[in-house]
Amino acid sequence: MAKPKTFKLKARLPRGFVDRSAADIRASDAMLAKIRAVYEHYGFDPVETPAFEYTDCLGKFLPDTDRPNAGVFSVQDDDEQWMSLRYDLTAPLARHVAENINEIQLPYRTYRAGWVFRNEKPGPGRFRQFMQFDADTIGAPGVQADAEMCMMMADTMEALGIPRGSYVIRVNNRKVLDGVMEAIGLGGEENAERRLTVLRAIDKLDKFGPEGVRLLLGEGRKDESGDFTKGAELGADAIDLILGYMAGTTRLDTEGQAELDQMAEIFTACDYGADRIKIDPSVVRGLEYYTGPVYEAELLFPVTNEKGEVVQFGSVGGGGRYDGLVKRFTGRDVPATGFSIGVSRLMTALKNLGKLGREEVLAPVLVTVMDGGLEALGRYQKMTQTLRAAGIRAEMYQGNWKKFGNQLKYADRRGCPLAIIQGSDEREQGVVQIKDLIEGKRLSGEITDNVTWRESRPAQETVAEGDIVAAVTRMLTAQAEDRDKASESGE
Amino acid sequence: MAKPKTFKLKARLPRGFVDRSAADIRASDAMLAKIRAVYEHYGFDPVETPAFEYTDCLGKFLPDTDRPNAGVFSVQDDDEQWMSLRYDLTAPLARHVAENINEIQLPYRTYRAGWVFRNEKPGPGRFRQFMQFDADTIGAPGVQADAEMCMMMADTMEALGIPRGSYVIRVNNRKVLDGVMEAIGLGGEENAERRLTVLRAIDKLDKFGPEGVRLLLGEGRKDESGDFTKGAELGADAIDLILGYMAGTTRLDTEGQAELDQMAEIFTACDYGADRIKIDPSVVRGLEYYTGPVYEAELLFPVTNEKGEVVQFGSVGGGGRYDGLVKRFTGRDVPATGFSIGVSRLMTALKNLGKLGREEVLAPVLVTVMDGGLEALGRYQKMTQTLRAAGIRAEMYQGNWKKFGNQLKYADRRGCPLAIIQGSDEREQGVVQIKDLIEGKRLSGEITDNVTWRESRPAQETVAEGDIVAAVTRMLTAQAEDRDKASESGE
Repeated sequence: MAKPKTFKLKARLPRGFVDRSAADIRASDAMLAKIRAVYEHYGFDPVETPAFEYTDCLGKFLPDTDRPNAGVFSVQDDDEQWMSLRYDLTAPLARHVAENINEIQLPYRTYRAGWVFRNEKPGPGRFRQFMQFDADTIGAPGVQADAEMCMMMADTMEALGIPRGSYVIRVNNRKVLDGVMEAIGLGGEENAERRLTVLRAIDKLDKFGPEGVRLLLGEGRKDESGDFTKGAELGADAIDLILGYMAGTTRLDTEGQAELDQMAEIFTACDYGADRIKIDPSVVRGLEYYTGPVYEAELLFPVTNEKGEVVQFGSVGGGGRYDGLVKRFTGRDVPATGFSIGVSRLMTALKNLGKLGREEVLAPVLVTVMDGGLEALGRYQKMTQTLRAAGIRAEMYQGNWKKFGNQLKYADRRGCPLAIIQGSDEREQGVVQIKDLIEGKRLSGEITDNVTWRESRPAQETVAEGDIVAAVTRMLTAQAEDRDKASESGE
Repeated sequence: MAKPKTFKLKARLPRGFVDRSAADIRASDAMLAKIRAVYEHYGFDPVETPAFEYTDCLGKFLPDTDRPNAGVFSVQDDDEQWMSLRYDLTAPLARHVAENINEIQLPYRTYRAGWVFRNEKPGPGRFRQFMQFDADTIGAPGVQADAEMCMMMADTMEALGIPRGSYVIRVNNRKVLDGVMEAIGLGGEENAERRLTVLRAIDKLDKFGPEGVRLLLGEGRKDESGDFTKGAELGADAIDLILGYMAGTTRLDTEGQAELDQMAEIFTACDYGADRIKIDPSVVRGLEYYTGPVYEAELLFPVTNEKGEVVQFGSVGGGGRYDGLVKRFTGRDVPATGFSIGVSRLMTALKNLGKLGREEVLAPVLVTVMDGGLEALGRYQKMTQTLRAAGIRAEMYQGNWKKFGNQLKYADRRGCPLAIIQGSDEREQGVVQIKDLIEGKRLSGEITDNVTWRESRPAQETVAEGDIVAAVTRMLTAQAEDRDKASESGE
């Protein structure tokens, strides 16, 4: 009888989760550092919460889902209480503040970057684990706090190198939207669900245009694939009123409108013009917990989406006032406002704009292994440690040393600047060979450049063992100068 | 009838999870940056995996639990496959390498810091979410790779300011332990469970001493509280052999011992003496997947534990060779070695040593609000933005402005260096008051110092609106000079 085939486990990730490469991590870290610097500058300090919260503490505030708790990852603890992975950073912050309300000095100005989790169907650019970077002021009743958030978002965009004109912070107020709802007879608790349908329709203005929104406010809308979205079934007058409001032609004199006017005055006083921050009646923000101003950072340059259509890049983050979130715990008013930046989406945007930090970490100098004997290994490792002690990024080849070609192939794919070689002949003479792998590539025609005035260097040098550090330093400096010249000449 | 009491949600965290304060986050970030610099210097690059993996990919390698999968957090995906939150960073790395084996250039030298999750009973210093910081070389068959890891751990300890003599990297080899098992008749698949009991007993040498281990290898051991741990039930000869081996008096000439000898030679060649790296037969490391050298970073200074006993601080991380982990997926040998640092534990250690970075972020300058009128708010906010534009960390008071005392109390608790005040009188004169809050504290006797030669400064200045930036800069500089003088005089 044949032996049964050995079971081999398939290496795969669950859908909606991804690994991050060195380039991604370094670019993301550089981006986060720039954002952090802006928040710190505005007087915010870091505070972080863990990945899990009790499910009841998180509440049912997930956007864009009709079955709130279906969108989160939940497990039951051994005392049978349900815990969930956080789906945003705001609900956990509200829990943190409520739990420590007696120790915390209000207003409480904090920021945090962290992973959040959504148990949803993944899609292109839509992950089940993604990073948000939030800033919040808790215990701030006035719209001046919301206005500050909008200015901080604008400053963040510019700190990331997004030019003025390529972004805009759009601002609205939930109370204005509430006024519109009242005006069309959708006030009151009993209309909560219909209001949500109407808000979602308004939120689609960018995507479907006024005619699409009109359909979603009325009977419903069929998309290109034939899928039908049921509408809010409003009458023609109500639809006209909403569309007029969204176009800016209908103005309701409400408390919300007054707050928007106040914010506009602060923006003007601080010289943040409409090219940076703009009052815009179509901003909704999906989350149910907002109670006042809502704001959104939108990128205005065109990109091609997965369907091949050219569209505006769109939102990279936003937020608003959530005066009720802490009150759920404390029973007393704790007014708050804050926003969240979608880190991966912003990374994609910066990639598109060519503003993502270039890889600037130099690959290590490779000490190759020509002899796997114990004494030789000690010697190669000692060379490597000597280079490291001198501040030079270095490594000894740790693969199977017997195929020397593999070592050079490794150095090449790794982008190593130099390789150090010592065979038995060199050992006897007390020298090493240092191969300049960058120059080697250039001489072999793999790198073509137009910097004609650059003198070519020898691609390999023989140096005494005692001079390795000096020679490596000299050769790395020469390479760095070449890189600078090349980048100056616009190569 | 009385109205039912409104339900108020209790703000609380699940057991074993904690929030992180600004001071913790800043100290931890500074520590991680130092570790990262060492790893980068050794030629390692970052790679990260997500929080979730398919449960079968993680494997059952959790240490110290008799019911392997009970220790992890698991959820079922909508296609009924089980996924788990990672309990370490090694199993996910093995999955990552196996999944991308055709694109990855071996040897693959990477590092990562990340949160891991254990669904275990929490206790003092024992969390259900904690951070590990790992480095691994995959595709490295020789013990020179393990030796490099040990030296990198030693360098990391010193980079963190832990003095030589206060740490040691202890090294052993699983193959030596396997030889011991063979010698006492516990070889073979059928004895796997008993071997684990014996290994756990050996691992307790630090904690219980040789006599405690003797009990655990024999009948079992009762602790002070009366709890009984069942022993391995070995005979007296077997126990003597193990204790002799652990004391270094019994030496088995095995492949494992030869590997240890080779590593020792490399350490000697690179000048890492026994004060930094030490071969130690009692090192076990709990994880089942180790196949060769195992190593552990131990801190040697005394601390008082939760029972009030003075003990050595102990392990802050460790690792070893795990040649079988990638093979589970690929079916072919992919030798690997790496280690993990327990970030919170190391933080605690550095706190004990006084080596954790001091809080060096200056609190913001506070622009107070004396008038909540719209025009005034715009003016205060503009002042704040002007300070920020000049590179000064600043904020406008965002709480209820009407109680001015609360604003100064806030500035005090926040540690703000300066407060800017403009009431209607100052407004008319086109000036502001700048209060030096540090000097104010000193003058009021809250700060007592022995720097007698320091001239006192005015605790409050009146400056023209147009000179705010210059005055604030000058006053912050004077404060910084005072801080420097105070720290020089050893205050």
